[in-house]
Amino acid sequence: MGLVVQKYGGTSVGDAERIRAVADHVARTVADGHQVVVVVSAMGKTTDDLIRLADQVSTEKPKRELDMLLTAGERISMALVCMALAERGVKAASFTGSQAGIITDTSHTRAKILEIQPTRLQEALASGHVPVVAGFQGVSTDRDITTLGRGGSDVTGVALAAALGADVCEIYTDVTGVFSADPRVVPAARRLPRISFDEMMEMAATGGRVLMLRSVEFARRHHVPLHVRSSFTWEPGTWVVEEESSMEEAVVTAVTDDVSESKVTVAQVPDRPGVAARLFRELALKGVNIDMIVQNTSQSGTTDISFTVEKSDTAAAVAACEGVREELKIGSISADDGVGRVTLIGAGMKSSPGITAKMFETLAALDINIEMISTSSIRISTIVRAERVGDAVRALHSAFGLDA
Amino acid sequence: MGLVVQKYGGTSVGDAERIRAVADHVARTVADGHQVVVVVSAMGKTTDDLIRLADQVSTEKPKRELDMLLTAGERISMALVCMALAERGVKAASFTGSQAGIITDTSHTRAKILEIQPTRLQEALASGHVPVVAGFQGVSTDRDITTLGRGGSDVTGVALAAALGADVCEIYTDVTGVFSADPRVVPAARRLPRISFDEMMEMAATGGRVLMLRSVEFARRHHVPLHVRSSFTWEPGTWVVEEESSMEEAVVTAVTDDVSESKVTVAQVPDRPGVAARLFRELALKGVNIDMIVQNTSQSGTTDISFTVEKSDTAAAVAACEGVREELKIGSISADDGVGRVTLIGAGMKSSPGITAKMFETLAALDINIEMISTSSIRISTIVRAERVGDAVRALHSAFGLDA
Repeated sequence: MGLVVQKYGGTSVGDAERIRAVADHVARTVADGHQVVVVVSAMGKTTDDLIRLADQVSTEKPKRELDMLLTAGERISMALVCMALAERGVKAASFTGSQAGIITDTSHTRAKILEIQPTRLQEALASGHVPVVAGFQGVSTDRDITTLGRGGSDVTGVALAAALGADVCEIYTDVTGVFSADPRVVPAARRLPRISFDEMMEMAATGGRVLMLRSVEFARRHHVPLHVRSSFTWEPGTWVVEEESSMEEAVVTAVTDDVSESKVTVAQVPDRPGVAARLFRELALKGVNIDMIVQNTSQSGTTDISFTVEKSDTAAAVAACEGVREELKIGSISADDGVGRVTLIGAGMKSSPGITAKMFETLAALDINIEMISTSSIRISTIVRAERVGDAVRALHSAFGLDA
Repeated sequence: MGLVVQKYGGTSVGDAERIRAVADHVARTVADGHQVVVVVSAMGKTTDDLIRLADQVSTEKPKRELDMLLTAGERISMALVCMALAERGVKAASFTGSQAGIITDTSHTRAKILEIQPTRLQEALASGHVPVVAGFQGVSTDRDITTLGRGGSDVTGVALAAALGADVCEIYTDVTGVFSADPRVVPAARRLPRISFDEMMEMAATGGRVLMLRSVEFARRHHVPLHVRSSFTWEPGTWVVEEESSMEEAVVTAVTDDVSESKVTVAQVPDRPGVAARLFRELALKGVNIDMIVQNTSQSGTTDISFTVEKSDTAAAVAACEGVREELKIGSISADDGVGRVTLIGAGMKSSPGITAKMFETLAALDINIEMISTSSIRISTIVRAERVGDAVRALHSAFGLDA
């Protein structure tokens, strides 16, 4: 007997049949003696449909109203889940983000949770109900409806699990767990039974598509065990948990790939204090999100700085650099969207010498040139040509003994 | 310069083009120097679509969850209206029923408004915004989302107009106003420039389809002038106002027709105190809504009681009567769904003798048999064969000088 938060994503509640399947599973969990809190996303294509409608109505879309519009989606899915539970004899009650006490800041379309006041959910649980909560949404300190941005429903699930002291937050999705590499790229990829929060964060940050970085960070900070699993097969998936000593045995856990970014290089920059600061402040002012940054030691009084950005931000990034070209005496600015990132992740890596060498040797054997390198204690990322990413991931997955 | 509440029904916001037209009109009203509060229904077919989806998911539909589901509809339309207003340079902000301070009782799917706390709307108005409020919905004293049932969006509009002290509540719909008879039945029907609350209530109660009885009652009680008009032509429509002396001149204002009911007759009932009370208590217990009731003076120790009910309630009504047949010693029970009601309405009627006689003579001249009669001070209703309703309405419309 424990308290379980079950979060169901858009594909998991994509149509009437899927919603009935979800209700069956919730009913089974309740029958097994657990207390359950359900968090749901909007049904599959609802959000896209609503945005299309807004596009037809107006070119102006104030963010406050966009939030009001999009939060209609979870309202529909959560009411339907409650109806299906009623049909199965399970007492349930739906709660909006506001009713669930999810208090956010006032940043519409990408609000952050400030506090959770889950009184009504606790009352519902105490009276034997399954609370079904709208993911992705909250109410701001100005009493306006907000949404939590990308991956927001996962954040709702994790935050509620933390606030309610749940034993686990189960994240139901359309894949069976977290894999040692993207199975579409590496057919031999294995499902990982367990992974540490740190590793999961690196995976989320470098191309792993199952969980958003934000919800993993939140879970780690609040010590909420995650269980990522499929709402299509219902088999056990991947547990994301605190690092345990036994985990150190596996040196390398996973290989991720990401071809969503492009590389921008600012060359022959005077190598003096404040230049990089000025450059990245300008990029921040223009709203460009930077991912990897690499700067080499200067050899000749000038240096080269390379960074990666989302492909859609490439033009804005170049324009921002051009804007400070004269001021900073930048030699040249170039962008390249033909790159991809390959990342090796493993909590055991930090205490295992030779991993880096073996990684580079593996890539060299395939004649794959490494254009940028960036490392953390549990990760080595390389930028290579986009068309070689698949070869690189498969070779590394095999070389580090991850193949099934 | 005044405060105008504009309520737009489902067809008025039925698609993107309609929403843009509504925004144009709101912007014009603001440009004319008025303060505007907008109340919107869900877009055209949204509610039907949501109910169809619920039918696919579950046979059980708890009313609390049905309310949660259906209130998604106004959320969508009001956000879209705000976006279209933003595009036109009009500052606007959407408010759910709860945010607008519409407090209801806890009767899900047919809640009644208990109180309005329009603080946020007043703040929005004070800061130069057009508040766009979700019609049809509120929040209960238990803090649950409720809906106001049929005609609920009109009630929202009228209630807000009353709470805010608005000069008028404009009800925008797909017809150009209130007519002296249904134009589909009587081609010569005229749009009425003005009508009294009392007359409008009788029309709503006897087959006039433009306004629900409930919102007219509310407007009369709170002295809110209504202006019923078209969101397709934007021309001035019909004002529903307090009775004025000049109104007495027109003896008969309108003729209505209604073929949605059937007639149930309980014959040879012992004519003693308490029998009718027991019969109608039983009908109420079974949830049957009674409309007209007629009982004649007893001739022989027994009497006949006839009443009309919605056609869909006919079987339930007959069953309820059968349930007390032995107890009350009822002779026979019969139902007839081939009837229709024709009603003559006019505030001047009460001081004009001969109206009743002229009405019955007009019907007799067409060889139309009158099966039931019921009157109030400003209305005469007759039940006739359904297939003669059209002839009856046209003849009366002409006989009382209403033809255009």
